[in-house]
Amino acid sequence: GVPILRNISEIGQDDYGRPGLSHTTIAGAVMHGFKEVEVWLQTFAPGTHTPIHRHSCEEIFVVLKGSGTLFLASNSHLKYPGKPQEFHLFPNSTFHIPVNDAHQVWNTNGLEDFQFLVIISRPPMKAFIYDDWLMPHTAAKLQFPYYWDEKCYQTPSSKDEL
Amino acid sequence: GVPILRNISEIGQDDYGRPGLSHTTIAGAVMHGFKEVEVWLQTFAPGTHTPIHRHSCEEIFVVLKGSGTLFLASNSHLKYPGKPQEFHLFPNSTFHIPVNDAHQVWNTNGLEDFQFLVIISRPPMKAFIYDDWLMPHTAAKLQFPYYWDEKCYQTPSSKDEL
Repeated sequence: GVPILRNISEIGQDDYGRPGLSHTTIAGAVMHGFKEVEVWLQTFAPGTHTPIHRHSCEEIFVVLKGSGTLFLASNSHLKYPGKPQEFHLFPNSTFHIPVNDAHQVWNTNGLEDFQFLVIISRPPMKAFIYDDWLMPHTAAKLQFPYYWDEKCYQTPSSKDEL
Repeated sequence: GVPILRNISEIGQDDYGRPGLSHTTIAGAVMHGFKEVEVWLQTFAPGTHTPIHRHSCEEIFVVLKGSGTLFLASNSHLKYPGKPQEFHLFPNSTFHIPVNDAHQVWNTNGLEDFQFLVIISRPPMKAFIYDDWLMPHTAAKLQFPYYWDEKCYQTPSSKDEL
């Protein structure tokens, strides 16, 4: 469990090996015991981006500061993502990722940090990562546990011998 | 469905008959088709509060502006909620409601608006409302659809005659 009330600035952040990223798990499955929903605070320095990836959970973003670009390929019914649509993200905007659509979020503004909240369902996240937009869906690689879950993910303890 | 990207300030807000409340459904089950998670933006004028209520979904708050008080009675195993614990809520704090615990959120600061994001799982919300902290759990009344879902909740269409 986790205390009922916490100061977000005291929760701690890390780049999890991805330079330019600041990630804080505000409410998480692995660390905090939530089973149905997870909330992250992320800040991307200019040029920072996610991998191209997909997942079958619902995902909603709320932009707090800065601007960026969402690249989204709604082609999960085809063999590979293909050329993505581009959406310009701005403060006080919200966007969501349709289930299983390949996508990538970038800080493309070059000047200031891009900060947003991310809400996902059914944690922990099971993400499949693409090298590029032409990689077949079937070749995308499962990244599990996801970057910020790696340090704290517990494999189930071995069963009792009985 | 709903457009991928939206300006939150253009989504529209309402008090849904509760003076002092400003509610915006950023991402919702009933309006937008999300099945697993819902995100609300709420602003409470000084003195504004939720009813005392409980629900079996997970619920996480992120405080954006102002301050207030969470009253929380973690007594779902007893006959009635009883005297609640008080938590002082402040900007950039986060808090969550344990499943089925009776709770109430107030703007108790008397001076400025209290604004926060609310994330719930398994929408739409099925809330049970108490008249006071001594009302038995079994007497709490189901409010469904919840206030902001009333206007847009669609009952399932009648089945085909076949």
